[in-house]
Amino acid sequence: MNWKARVLTLDGLMPSLDDANRLVWGTLADVPEDAELCFLGLDEGKACFAAVPPRGDATPRMANPQLWSLMSTLQPDDLAIYGGARSLADWHARHRFCAQCGGDTKLAKGGWQRNCTACEASHFPRTDPVTIMLVEHEGRLMLGRGLGWPEGRFSALAGFVEPGESIEEGVAREVLEEAGVRVRDVTYVASQPWPFPSQLMIGCHSHADSDELTIDETEMAEVEFFTCEQVGAALEGNGPFVAPPPHAIAHHLLQWWMER
Amino acid sequence: MNWKARVLTLDGLMPSLDDANRLVWGTLADVPEDAELCFLGLDEGKACFAAVPPRGDATPRMANPQLWSLMSTLQPDDLAIYGGARSLADWHARHRFCAQCGGDTKLAKGGWQRNCTACEASHFPRTDPVTIMLVEHEGRLMLGRGLGWPEGRFSALAGFVEPGESIEEGVAREVLEEAGVRVRDVTYVASQPWPFPSQLMIGCHSHADSDELTIDETEMAEVEFFTCEQVGAALEGNGPFVAPPPHAIAHHLLQWWMER
Ligand SMILES: [Zn+2]
Ligand SMILES: [Zn+2]
Repeated sequence: MNWKARVLTLDGLMPSLDDANRLVWGTLADVPEDAELCFLGLDEGKACFAAVPPRGDATPRMANPQLWSLMSTLQPDDLAIYGGARSLADWHARHRFCAQCGGDTKLAKGGWQRNCTACEASHFPRTDPVTIMLVEHEGRLMLGRGLGWPEGRFSALAGFVEPGESIEEGVAREVLEEAGVRVRDVTYVASQPWPFPSQLMIGCHSHADSDELTIDETEMAEVEFFTCEQVGAALEGNGPFVAPPPHAIAHHLLQWWMER
Repeated sequence: MNWKARVLTLDGLMPSLDDANRLVWGTLADVPEDAELCFLGLDEGKACFAAVPPRGDATPRMANPQLWSLMSTLQPDDLAIYGGARSLADWHARHRFCAQCGGDTKLAKGGWQRNCTACEASHFPRTDPVTIMLVEHEGRLMLGRGLGWPEGRFSALAGFVEPGESIEEGVAREVLEEAGVRVRDVTYVASQPWPFPSQLMIGCHSHADSDELTIDETEMAEVEFFTCEQVGAALEGNGPFVAPPPHAIAHHLLQWWMER
């Protein structure tokens, strides 16, 4: 039997980094005896865990500047581990009670489930599918700036897939709601998990029938079309807008579009 | 002001059908005064609602023979309306309490949200992304029969996308877990909502490196490879296995594979 285990060091839901910007790990001795532990997997022969923090994330989805800058300093493998651990620990912290009966729940199956101690219902970590879409019209690309975003920062439109719709229907509804135009020929490009709190980003491409926009001002500050040259310059850091950071799928989508 | 409204008639979560196999609708007078109503949208100038039933669905996911046969008799537009309404009503029925604090929740935003009356947390209907995959090896297709499925019924392997993984990673993990083989060149084919309880089915194609299988016997009764001729015959109802029904995305995936 091998008892080697390590526990991801979290301050609330924030990671701790050492001088080399790597994730810091502790041992089972570092967490309270009654801490709920999520099993993350095996790494170099050691079982990796994350402890459920006292509180979940109460910040608005997709808006935490401190984390965004921290993420850009993490190595890709650390980013993947931290993202998965954060999603899971946050879900547990926000699901200590049973939505069906209000009873207490407790962690089960190594952290991949919670069971109700009263009605015995099982609850599973949630992953929300989100479409994020390139919308093209006559060689130009539609990008938007959400309400509350910094001046000059533009990215691809995005929105949650709603119950009862396909990916393609979700893309069409979202663009119609936010920008007032119909799209066709929706195709899938790439996907990426996004741990704030737990999204599956589904990147698509589509064509708009028109470039006459009717912007939903309760969601978007600006929506504009940009040329290939403008997008290329922005990706190099000297364009007419600030492009999404390299670890975001929107960055990858813009690069994919430039290479086509 | 237009007060025209109709309410989908549900028996628990089951639909009611008229003699022409169309969905039956009632009026606001048909539901209790304190019933929670989900707004489904406008149809022919009338606001369409579904009332939240006393109880949610407690049957295992993806296994309700009565519903499966009922669904095959529904028209596509009725199927889409019923599917969305069922997912939403079921989610409300199973989320009367706040997972964060155990307090009472109440319906908000016309049924697209529930708010906690104690801690003020907002809760949103959930949609679970599920990958369903064609796995090909040297021109033959891998299909499986789940534990508890009727003898002879085969379909594409499927599984929930877990927190922290992409669609492509989910496909590879699921096939490795259930059939013991590695896949490459995962591509997206099509998607479809599936309302039991609320899934987004993401259909993919991939290539297996080998046809030597190690089956997970806690999940699958059989996993086998079938030739093009065998799949074609099954789709026509006289093959070596029973194909998935026409309203399931697996049926569409098999047809897509045959046409390639
Ligand atoms: Zn319960
Ligand atoms: Zn609450």
